[in-house]
Amino acid sequence: MAGTKLIDDVFPWPEGKRTAVCFSFDVDAESLLHLGFRDEADNKVVTRSEMRYDAHVAVPRLLAIFRNHDIRQTFFVPGWCLEAYPEMVKAILDDGHEIAHHGYVHEMGNKLTPENERYWFERGTKAVEKATGRKPAGFRAPSYGFSRHTLELMIEHGMIYDASMMGHDVPYILKHPRGEIVELPSQRALDDWTHFVLSRDYNWLISMQTPENGFAIYRAEFDAAWRHGGVWIAVWHPFVTGRLSRAEAMDALIDHMKSQGGVWFAPMDEIARHATAARKDGRWKPYIDPMPYNAGVLPELAERM
Amino acid sequence: MAGTKLIDDVFPWPEGKRTAVCFSFDVDAESLLHLGFRDEADNKVVTRSEMRYDAHVAVPRLLAIFRNHDIRQTFFVPGWCLEAYPEMVKAILDDGHEIAHHGYVHEMGNKLTPENERYWFERGTKAVEKATGRKPAGFRAPSYGFSRHTLELMIEHGMIYDASMMGHDVPYILKHPRGEIVELPSQRALDDWTHFVLSRDYNWLISMQTPENGFAIYRAEFDAAWRHGGVWIAVWHPFVTGRLSRAEAMDALIDHMKSQGGVWFAPMDEIARHATAARKDGRWKPYIDPMPYNAGVLPELAERM
Amino acid sequence: MAGTKLIDDVFPWPEGKRTAVCFSFDVDAESLLHLGFRDEADNKVVTRSEMRYDAHVAVPRLLAIFRNHDIRQTFFVPGWCLEAYPEMVKAILDDGHEIAHHGYVHEMGNKLTPENERYWFERGTKAVEKATGRKPAGFRAPSYGFSRHTLELMIEHGMIYDASMMGHDVPYILKHPRGEIVELPSQRALDDWTHFVLSRDYNWLISMQTPENGFAIYRAEFDAAWRHGGVWIAVWHPFVTGRLSRAEAMDALIDHMKSQGGVWFAPMDEIARHATAARKDGRWKPYIDPMPYNAGVLPELAERM
Amino acid sequence: MAGTKLIDDVFPWPEGKRTAVCFSFDVDAESLLHLGFRDEADNKVVTRSEMRYDAHVAVPRLLAIFRNHDIRQTFFVPGWCLEAYPEMVKAILDDGHEIAHHGYVHEMGNKLTPENERYWFERGTKAVEKATGRKPAGFRAPSYGFSRHTLELMIEHGMIYDASMMGHDVPYILKHPRGEIVELPSQRALDDWTHFVLSRDYNWLISMQTPENGFAIYRAEFDAAWRHGGVWIAVWHPFVTGRLSRAEAMDALIDHMKSQGGVWFAPMDEIARHATAARKDGRWKPYIDPMPYNAGVLPELAERM
Repeated sequence: MAGTKLIDDVFPWPEGKRTAVCFSFDVDAESLLHLGFRDEADNKVVTRSEMRYDAHVAVPRLLAIFRNHDIRQTFFVPGWCLEAYPEMVKAILDDGHEIAHHGYVHEMGNKLTPENERYWFERGTKAVEKATGRKPAGFRAPSYGFSRHTLELMIEHGMIYDASMMGHDVPYILKHPRGEIVELPSQRALDDWTHFVLSRDYNWLISMQTPENGFAIYRAEFDAAWRHGGVWIAVWHPFVTGRLSRAEAMDALIDHMKSQGGVWFAPMDEIARHATAARKDGRWKPYIDPMPYNAGVLPELAERM
Repeated sequence: MAGTKLIDDVFPWPEGKRTAVCFSFDVDAESLLHLGFRDEADNKVVTRSEMRYDAHVAVPRLLAIFRNHDIRQTFFVPGWCLEAYPEMVKAILDDGHEIAHHGYVHEMGNKLTPENERYWFERGTKAVEKATGRKPAGFRAPSYGFSRHTLELMIEHGMIYDASMMGHDVPYILKHPRGEIVELPSQRALDDWTHFVLSRDYNWLISMQTPENGFAIYRAEFDAAWRHGGVWIAVWHPFVTGRLSRAEAMDALIDHMKSQGGVWFAPMDEIARHATAARKDGRWKPYIDPMPYNAGVLPELAERM
Repeated sequence: MAGTKLIDDVFPWPEGKRTAVCFSFDVDAESLLHLGFRDEADNKVVTRSEMRYDAHVAVPRLLAIFRNHDIRQTFFVPGWCLEAYPEMVKAILDDGHEIAHHGYVHEMGNKLTPENERYWFERGTKAVEKATGRKPAGFRAPSYGFSRHTLELMIEHGMIYDASMMGHDVPYILKHPRGEIVELPSQRALDDWTHFVLSRDYNWLISMQTPENGFAIYRAEFDAAWRHGGVWIAVWHPFVTGRLSRAEAMDALIDHMKSQGGVWFAPMDEIARHATAARKDGRWKPYIDPMPYNAGVLPELAERM
Repeated sequence: MAGTKLIDDVFPWPEGKRTAVCFSFDVDAESLLHLGFRDEADNKVVTRSEMRYDAHVAVPRLLAIFRNHDIRQTFFVPGWCLEAYPEMVKAILDDGHEIAHHGYVHEMGNKLTPENERYWFERGTKAVEKATGRKPAGFRAPSYGFSRHTLELMIEHGMIYDASMMGHDVPYILKHPRGEIVELPSQRALDDWTHFVLSRDYNWLISMQTPENGFAIYRAEFDAAWRHGGVWIAVWHPFVTGRLSRAEAMDALIDHMKSQGGVWFAPMDEIARHATAARKDGRWKPYIDPMPYNAGVLPELAERM
C-alpha cells in the first residue's frame, strides 16, 4: 500500500517544522552572455535585453512577492553583476535577504586551470564582501561546474555551505581532508531552466511547460518533501520565474506551502548554521560524502578501453 | 497571500483600457528557406509547401478571424515576401492592418557586416514603402538578430517603434545618442515557434504542445498582463498558428480576451503613437534602456580568460 | 465571436460526407537502419528489433483494428520491405488496403543525383508492382525528401496522387509542365514521430507525449477538419502508433470520428480518383501549386550575401 | 467499435495471472561518468553527486517500497558498481531480489571490438558471480548497445534471458545457431530517461514530464498490457525514479496494479524460467526472432548508393 516511508536520514528541523524551503535565485543577468560570447555580447541585443530583465524587472518583482509573504531567502549573484547593478543589490539587502557567491562572470570552475579557478573564485568572494560588507557564507557553482578543487577553496575561505549538489534530499556533509561544510542540495526538477527556458544562443532547445505543469513538478516535490522531511531548494532565475504568469504561480505556490504548515522559509545561511549547530551537539547524524573523489581514469578502463 | 502587485512601471493605457493586445504575425513564407539553404531552397519541396501555406492559406484565414472580431493588427513581412505575394499584401492592407518591417529575406542583422546590414535594412524599408505607400513605422528583427547598429538605422529611417526586445512587460524606451524609439516587447513564451514548430531543416527539434496547453501558456500571460497592466504581444507565424486547430484556439482566445473587458486591440503603430504622445505630455515615465551596450570583450575577461 | 469560417477552398466531398480521413501508415521496418547505418545495421540489434516490430507485431494489430471498424486505408511501404516481408504484404492486400510507393530503402530523393533518384524511384515502383500486381497510384516521399525532380517522375509513371506536402488543409493540385496530380496533404502535427518517438540513433531527442495528449492533438485537428471541411491524413508508423497504449487510443479515435458522422474513411487512391473526376466535371476548383519552384540561389541573395 | 483484440501471440501466464510486471532498475551509479568522461569523471562533481544518489539514497528507498508491497524484482548492476557499493548489493540480496548483468562499466558492446566485448562481458559476469554467489541468469545491454555477437556470448555463459529488446509486447525467443534464450522485452516509453532526465553532460536535452504525465504513460501501457495479456517491464534508474515525487508515484502505481488483480510481480529470472518450462512442455508457441541478422551493407545499397 502506498505511503512507504521514503527518507531514513532524518534531519533535525527546528521545533515545529518538518521541511525547509528556499527559493534561491541565481541572478546571472548578462554574465552568461559575456562569458559565452566574449566578442558578441554587445551584438546579441535581444538576448541581452532578456537578461537585463533580471535586474531591472524581475528582481524587484520577486522582492515584492517575498515582502508580501514576509519571508527572506537567498540570491546567488556573480561578482560582475553585483558591480554592474548596485541598486538591485541594495534593494535585496534592504529587505534582509542573503547574497551568496556565484562566481565572478558565471565561470565554470571545472573548465578552468586550478590557478584560474582560484583567481576567479577569489574575485567573486571579494565582490560579495564589498557589496554586502561580509564574506559569503555559501556558494553555488555556476552551471553546476563544481571542480575537484572547489570544495577546498570554499573551506579555505571559511564558507559554511554549498548549494550545488544533487546527492540527497536532505542536507548532508561534504567532507574534505582540510575540513567540511554543509551541503544544501537541489535537483534538476527544481531548476527553472529545465521547464521554462528555450534559447538558441545557449543551445537549449526544449519544450516549454505551461505554468500549471511546471509548477505541478515543483509542488509534487514540495509535497513529498513535506510528507517525508526533505528540504526543498529551488534553483531559479529571475528572468525565467520572474515573468508575469510564473511570478503569479510562485505567489500561489507560497500560499500552498504556508497552508500546509510546518514549513521553514529561511535563507540558506540560516539553514546551514542550524545544521552546523545540530551536528556539533549531536542531534544530527548526517550522510557524509568524502571528497575529492578518485582522480583520473579508472584503472580498469585504462587497461583496456 | 497571493495577489502581490507585479508591475510598478505603470503604463498610461487609453481611457477604460488596462492592457493592450497585438497578435502580430511574422509572414516569413519561403524567405527562411532562401536564406538558410541558398542552393537547395528549390529542392526542399515539402518544407517549401509548408512555408507557402503562409501566404496562400493561413494569412487569408487570419484575416477572416480578425474581420470576424473587428480588430486590426500588425503583420511583419520581409521585403522579398511583399514582392512575391502582392495579392496577400493587398488583402492585408484592404482590411486596414499595419504592415511593418521584417528585413528583406529574413536576414539577421547581427550576422552581417554593418555595410550589409544597412544595405538589406534599406532594401526592406523600400519594399514596405513600395507595397504600402508609406515608410514602415516599426521593425521586428528577423530571428531576433538585432545588432548593435540596428537601433541607429531605425532612428535614421524615422521609425517610431521596435518589436524585437524582451526587456520588460510594458512598453519602454530604447535610447540612443541620436534619438529614441518606443519598444513594444514580447518574450519567448509568446512566440509560436516555442510551442508548435518541429523542423529538422531548421534544427528545431522540440516537442509540440497540444493546442490546449500551448494556448494555456498564452492565456496565462494574458490574464497576468490584464491583472497587472502589462502588454501582450504575440510573435506568431501564419503557417504555425494558422493551422486549423490553432486558428480555432486563437478565435476562442480572442473571445476570452474580449470577455474580460478593458482590452485594447490595436496595430503596433497606434500603440507606439499613443506612447509617444504620453511621453511628450509627461503622463508616461518609462523605463529607459540606453544603447548601444558596451562594445567588445569585458575587460575583466580579456585579462585572464 | 469564435466560429469564424476557416476554409474557403471548399472540396466537393462525396454525398453526405464533410471530411475524409486516412490513417496512412509508413511501414519502414529496418529500411531506415540500412540506409542510415550501412555498415552497422546488423550491429544495432535493439533498434533493429524495434523496427522489426513494424512487420511482425504492429501491422497485424493495425489490420485487426481496421477490420473491426470495417475501413480500408493506405500503407506506404519501401520496396525493400515489400520484398523482405511478403507475408505482411499478403495480409495487407487480403484485407483490401492500398499499398503505395515509399521509395526503395527509404532514400530521400532530394539527397540523390537526379540519375540515382530515378534509379531508386523506379526500383520502388517495380517492387510495388511486383508485390501488388499493379503500379502504385501514389507516393509519399521518405523523410519528406521530395526533390525538384520527383513530381515529373511521378507523372511519368502515371501516378495520380502525392501524399508528401503540407501546403493546404484540403486536397489540391501539383501542376507541372508535363501534367498534374492530386496532392493529399498532411502536416507535422499529424506525424507520429512528432509526438511519440525518441531515438538517439536518429538524433531525434524530443519529449514523448502521453497517449492522451498526443491524441488530443490529432483529435483537435480532426474536429477542426470536420467542422470546416478539411482532409485529415495521418503520417503514422506501425512501430510507433502500433504500441499497445497508442493502438487503444487509435481504436477509440476511430469511434469518435464515426460518432461525428459524415466522415469518409478511404484509401488515398479512392480519394484521389474522386478528386480527379470532380476536377474533370468542374465540381472542384482546386488551389493549384505550380512546380518546379524557381531554381538556384535567389538573384537578390547572390548579389550581396 | 473500440475493444479490438490487440495481441495474438498469447503467452501462458501462470494460473490466475494475466500479465507480468517487473520494475527492473539499472543501477548505473558513476559508471556512465567513468565511461563517458574518462579523464573528467572526478571533475564533474555535481553530476557525480547525482549519480551517487543511486547507491546511497535511491536504492534503499526502492527496497523499502518493494518490502512494503512484498514484491521481489530485478536489478541490473554493472560489475564496477557491484564492487564499489558492496553494502548496497548486500541490501538488495538480503531482500531476495535478483541481480543481473549490465556490463562492467556500462560499456556498449556494439561499440567495441569482438575481443573487447568478450573481455568486458566476462568481467561483468564474474563480478555478478562474485557478488551474488551465482552466475547471472540474464543481461540487459547498457545503453541498448547489444551487438551482433552479444547473443552468442550470453548463450555461451548459460544465460536464460535477455532484457534489452523491443521486438514484441510479450516474451519471445532469440534464436541463434548455437542455442536460444527468452527475450523479456520493453520499449522506449517504459524507460525513465525518456520522461524524466535532462542532462547536458550526456547531451540529453528534453523536456521533463510532470510525475502525473510521466506515470500516465506507464499506466496506459500497463492497463493495455493487463487488458491484452502483455508483459510490462520498466527500464528505470534509481537516481531518476527514486526521487521523492516519483517514488511516491511509483508507490501509487503499484497500488493501482494490485487493485486490478491478476498481476504477476516477479524477478525476471523467474519469468524466464516459467517461459522456458512452458516452451519445453509445449504450452507456449512463441514468436521467434532468428539472429544474427544479416551482416554488412545491404547488397542493394552497395551497388548504387
